[in-house]
Amino acid sequence: MSRDSEAITRIGVRRATAAGLAAEPLEDALAVEEPLEIRLGHASGSRWTTHSLAVTMRTPGADFELAAGFLFTEGVIRSCDDIARIAHAGPARGHHRTQNIVRVDLQPGIAVDLKRLQRNFVTSSSCGVCGKASIEGLTLRGFAPLAPGVPRLAAASLAGLPDRLRAAQQVFHHTGGLHAAGLFSVDGALLAVREDVGRHNALDKLIGSQLLERSLPLSTSILVLSGRIGFELVQKALAAGIPILAAVGAPSSLAVETAREFDMTLAGFVRNRTFNVYSSAERLA
Amino acid sequence: MSRDSEAITRIGVRRATAAGLAAEPLEDALAVEEPLEIRLGHASGSRWTTHSLAVTMRTPGADFELAAGFLFTEGVIRSCDDIARIAHAGPARGHHRTQNIVRVDLQPGIAVDLKRLQRNFVTSSSCGVCGKASIEGLTLRGFAPLAPGVPRLAAASLAGLPDRLRAAQQVFHHTGGLHAAGLFSVDGALLAVREDVGRHNALDKLIGSQLLERSLPLSTSILVLSGRIGFELVQKALAAGIPILAAVGAPSSLAVETAREFDMTLAGFVRNRTFNVYSSAERLA
Repeated sequence: MSRDSEAITRIGVRRATAAGLAAEPLEDALAVEEPLEIRLGHASGSRWTTHSLAVTMRTPGADFELAAGFLFTEGVIRSCDDIARIAHAGPARGHHRTQNIVRVDLQPGIAVDLKRLQRNFVTSSSCGVCGKASIEGLTLRGFAPLAPGVPRLAAASLAGLPDRLRAAQQVFHHTGGLHAAGLFSVDGALLAVREDVGRHNALDKLIGSQLLERSLPLSTSILVLSGRIGFELVQKALAAGIPILAAVGAPSSLAVETAREFDMTLAGFVRNRTFNVYSSAERLA
Repeated sequence: MSRDSEAITRIGVRRATAAGLAAEPLEDALAVEEPLEIRLGHASGSRWTTHSLAVTMRTPGADFELAAGFLFTEGVIRSCDDIARIAHAGPARGHHRTQNIVRVDLQPGIAVDLKRLQRNFVTSSSCGVCGKASIEGLTLRGFAPLAPGVPRLAAASLAGLPDRLRAAQQVFHHTGGLHAAGLFSVDGALLAVREDVGRHNALDKLIGSQLLERSLPLSTSILVLSGRIGFELVQKALAAGIPILAAVGAPSSLAVETAREFDMTLAGFVRNRTFNVYSSAERLA
């Protein structure tokens, strides 16, 4: 394989059609997938410790945004001010010299609940393991309902956003293989777009970019996702204070229950200028 | 929300079209998403211990298959014989009395490397964190190249399988919201299909079903996936010995590199009777 950017690589493929399998290979572009290890450095009492927090399979690029966004949406940090330093660690590898370890050092005095991170999940003792407990876990993390009725956006404006997200997807254009998360203003301006082989990573990169620009909370923005909507994507959007989430795919039951609990406007199947609204429709009326 | 099966729930939604937002809600079906905690019971020296291994957001149904498949594809168990007992634990919840904890007890004498599980990832010391190390990690787990050139399948036969997978998707038909993994024989018989909000879960359920039926390895079967193909899906298919993987979506760079390393036939963009072959095309010639 050869790489023409850190996010795209080219290989030979055999094309199959009704005429059978082509004898000669064609060149095709693929989205790059490489592991990224996120390490957290923080003070523990009088000592400085470093933990390997997660390894995620991601498309290289925007690694600092991905690490910062992950730490923020998972509740490890609460603002950009918690971060003292972000840097790549370890050797660079391969044609584009990809670096696959990011180390985030926290400011002294920022406490880290590693036990909660190891559980990867918050359960409430009143209910145990269930969707309701997952939602209660967000309340325990300090999530509160969004301001009702703001911002407002015409339904017709929302309907056009996925096409504009697709048009802005650089890597998808070449590979057909990436998820995207895009942020729009209420007057339709595209504020930011990020792509990744993983849809959670695409959203973490997007939110991380806004965190590092000190633009959180995103209380007047619209988030547009290229795929389906599960609980964890709604959770990440809520962490960033996003009031309107529109996706090309279907939401899950728990995504809808969570959006309803926190007064987020959730739109799904946003395709061909039509969509379904699952919660807080008044922002689109 | 009301549930009409453990996998499908119905809610009221507002439909938006060119005419604007409908005043009256319609009823819509959603795929259910609930957490599943997988607990592992095993002998450690003379003591019996239980660990919470993972919590995954899944669509209820086939929970035992999901737990068994997860343990197998992640390398915790090597065969059905390693399992002494699988049971739901904890209370039943909600309308369909969903149970969200599965406990798998191993046979005495089956050793568990919990440290490796906690890392969630195998890195080789020669390379560190990179795609090459991810592939080397599979070799360290005992993965070997598949038998070359078998089975053989006409390209035209492969091209028709995604439509048959879609036709077999019960929950997708109602909700438009689920990933699917389907297993076919070389003569085109649909052997099994499983659905889930998570594509890794759909594949773990499918492989778990075959594990519990003692049908592994699946060395003469074709796996068809409804979405894109990343490294972890190729890894799970290789764990089950599957020689041909066909997906509706695009593969990542690391998915292709891994398939090439272990001589798996990988086909992507299998749509409209055409597709690309990324590796080991001789099985389709």
